[in-house]
Amino acid sequence: MHLVAIGGSDAGISAALRARELDPSVEVTVVVADAYPNFSICGIPYYFSREVQPWQSLAHRTHADLEATGMQLRLNTFATGIDVAGQSLTVRAENGVEEQISYDELVVGTGALPSFAGIAGLGTLGPDDGVHVIHSMGDTFALDRHLEDRDPKTAIIVGAGYVGLEMAEALTVRGLQVTQIQRGPEVLSTLDPELGALVHRELTDHHVEVLAGTTIVEVEKHAEGLVVHGHQHGEQISRTADLVLVVVGVRPNTDLLERAGATLGAGGAVVVDEAMRTGLPHVWSAGDGVVTHHRLMGVTYLPLGTTAHKQGRVAGENALGGNVRFAGSVGTQVVKVFDLVASRTGLRDHEALAHGFSPETVAAVADDHKRYYPGAQPISIRITGDTGDGRLLGAQLVGRLGTETAKRVDTYATALYAGLSMEQVSELDLSYTPPLGSPWDAVQVATQQWTRTLQAGVHA
Amino acid sequence: MHLVAIGGSDAGISAALRARELDPSVEVTVVVADAYPNFSICGIPYYFSREVQPWQSLAHRTHADLEATGMQLRLNTFATGIDVAGQSLTVRAENGVEEQISYDELVVGTGALPSFAGIAGLGTLGPDDGVHVIHSMGDTFALDRHLEDRDPKTAIIVGAGYVGLEMAEALTVRGLQVTQIQRGPEVLSTLDPELGALVHRELTDHHVEVLAGTTIVEVEKHAEGLVVHGHQHGEQISRTADLVLVVVGVRPNTDLLERAGATLGAGGAVVVDEAMRTGLPHVWSAGDGVVTHHRLMGVTYLPLGTTAHKQGRVAGENALGGNVRFAGSVGTQVVKVFDLVASRTGLRDHEALAHGFSPETVAAVADDHKRYYPGAQPISIRITGDTGDGRLLGAQLVGRLGTETAKRVDTYATALYAGLSMEQVSELDLSYTPPLGSPWDAVQVATQQWTRTLQAGVHA
Repeated sequence: MHLVAIGGSDAGISAALRARELDPSVEVTVVVADAYPNFSICGIPYYFSREVQPWQSLAHRTHADLEATGMQLRLNTFATGIDVAGQSLTVRAENGVEEQISYDELVVGTGALPSFAGIAGLGTLGPDDGVHVIHSMGDTFALDRHLEDRDPKTAIIVGAGYVGLEMAEALTVRGLQVTQIQRGPEVLSTLDPELGALVHRELTDHHVEVLAGTTIVEVEKHAEGLVVHGHQHGEQISRTADLVLVVVGVRPNTDLLERAGATLGAGGAVVVDEAMRTGLPHVWSAGDGVVTHHRLMGVTYLPLGTTAHKQGRVAGENALGGNVRFAGSVGTQVVKVFDLVASRTGLRDHEALAHGFSPETVAAVADDHKRYYPGAQPISIRITGDTGDGRLLGAQLVGRLGTETAKRVDTYATALYAGLSMEQVSELDLSYTPPLGSPWDAVQVATQQWTRTLQAGVHA
Repeated sequence: MHLVAIGGSDAGISAALRARELDPSVEVTVVVADAYPNFSICGIPYYFSREVQPWQSLAHRTHADLEATGMQLRLNTFATGIDVAGQSLTVRAENGVEEQISYDELVVGTGALPSFAGIAGLGTLGPDDGVHVIHSMGDTFALDRHLEDRDPKTAIIVGAGYVGLEMAEALTVRGLQVTQIQRGPEVLSTLDPELGALVHRELTDHHVEVLAGTTIVEVEKHAEGLVVHGHQHGEQISRTADLVLVVVGVRPNTDLLERAGATLGAGGAVVVDEAMRTGLPHVWSAGDGVVTHHRLMGVTYLPLGTTAHKQGRVAGENALGGNVRFAGSVGTQVVKVFDLVASRTGLRDHEALAHGFSPETVAAVADDHKRYYPGAQPISIRITGDTGDGRLLGAQLVGRLGTETAKRVDTYATALYAGLSMEQVSELDLSYTPPLGSPWDAVQVATQQWTRTLQAGVHA
């Protein structure tokens, strides 16, 4: 039995690890496009902030750790074609030589590629020009060289999602003056703008210039630096900087599977079922390249590292004849931006509406712990439930670092998994001690507020 | 409609607040034995550590806040008898004058009293002698006077439960040399001794002398100070100190309801159903004086502030004709001891066994966040599940302050409420960002470890 995994990131490595864990007699080969298997891409911003040094620390597991599990790694090896009927993979080594690798089962974890959102100039300008993306260790080294060798003073970050925000912090820490540009009306558009505004303020409090509601259409290289052109509220706008970082999201990297005959679905990602089957015999796929089964939305595209780990594990087990299913995402996400933590799980109002629910979203503010104990900080919560059956549909939380906001969202995520109602969340027996909570936890202050608001609406 | 609540702590006030919230036309009177309604008894140790000043800050709500809700407070008024048939309460005011208060519905929240665990001398020695308990604001003022006026240098704390540990920290912060005495083999006996040992080390690291496995049988007052006598591993032991604090638990304060004809049950507490009915017509009860409905253990006695709040709310609503039920405790608890946080929810191995489960408890250690990001700290977890159906039965966690241990236990508490299995907890979509978590959260590292251990056992 020979299992081949393509991709050295979360999905491919998780599949390989699971296969080796379940059956040490299985031969496992992982084909990795670069020399950096199992690196924590989510950690790259902390390399730039110099909180993580050296870059080798970013490996979840070292090369030696991985080989110790008994898997074979084929580094700097690019998968160019799948012969589904022949159960054979064509790969190209660093020296350009092509080779066939036959497999019994194949797990494809080719992930995603940076999106350019149709911005002119990005097709031609690259790292040597000072225009960067940040999606691989190669991108990381290129940006690192730029920072070390050319000592840029100013940076424009196009995009204000998770990575964009983390990089705004990192480059600010490194002493650059950062301008952050967001197309939507508020930064971190995965949250409601009322909460995004708190993140916006945290950025400006740390001297990041934020331009929201701003669409960039072109990047140009001039003698005085890189110039981005766009429009904000109907007005033309331009900004010049020494460095441009484009982090406007990702698109699934489906080329290989598409050519092999796989079907594309939500978000242009490869269709898989909850067992991670592609529909092609003996070909499984997982991670940022495939559609996401979501417990509330059904099939969507929501690429996240946590999901890739879980899907990869499922693919690895099923490739060996197992019968497990990916239980589904609820879209739990968290980001630290300077001293603020912003998180969400489940659906926002408009998403719930689009998926057939009757949502109502209510805002609440609750202290992370008893106000009389020093250091209490408010957590701002927006909570969404179904007005029909009272079911919890989603929650968004923003609190300062140290308020346990990241793990408070997990209480909601667990409740979403279990299909609990707002009233049931209010009933939960959550922990309390004055330095760390309240008799009714902040999580429950919000659900009680939701229930009260709805009852007031009914009586009104 | 006149609702009378007895007790100014969590249960009584919660009942009164809920009644006023539901129906502002209801007349609500709260009979409070002292002058300090709605004080956070859980916060008292932080008054002694001087983190909370002045003592008035310990009020959840001020007297004015409470009156603004429309409830009447009868302070320094002691309830002496209930005429159930006549729906009348006898109270004694501070001046000794007795009075009848007629009620339509009565909620009794008389709480608990400090236990003395049969230690000789505690019946006669009191605050003036330097022997203290800490259960009310009156106790607090007495201990405060002792510390201020007599400047004690040494303290013996008999008991190493939540309050005992918090007071060990507080008195150490105040400069006293503290000896902490625990009857059981390890401090914080509500956790497995393997985790209690971590708390023990935290105490000794902060120069608290810890005597575990030590039973105190007598306290005496001598010229040179207070002397406690006991035995440790069969040997006689004595210690002398300027101050003795006895915090060995509580017993339900049932006198009033017992004389009115209520039934006593688990732990000597008043039997109530999940609607908080005592069985006596128009008499409800909630809080530390009544039995606790536990979702895994059935009816037990587990007095906790969080539970009292929830039960009081149920009693207040049902007294007004509502039809709600206390959903049940899962025994979630957390305590901060110096820089350590110790928490638990659900059942430990021996408790699960005693309640008909087939438990297996597994230990795991997992970092609170990615190790490459600065400040990662291990969280020690012991997790208990049923070997028959794989259901999660309980979890205990000890981690340093800042590791979000308090809210990680809430994920388990939510899973317990929903009856999730270990494998389902492993499937949860929990939040991840490198500074605050891992792709598989610590919570899931433990459940995966449990599953692996069981499978290894099956294969063995």
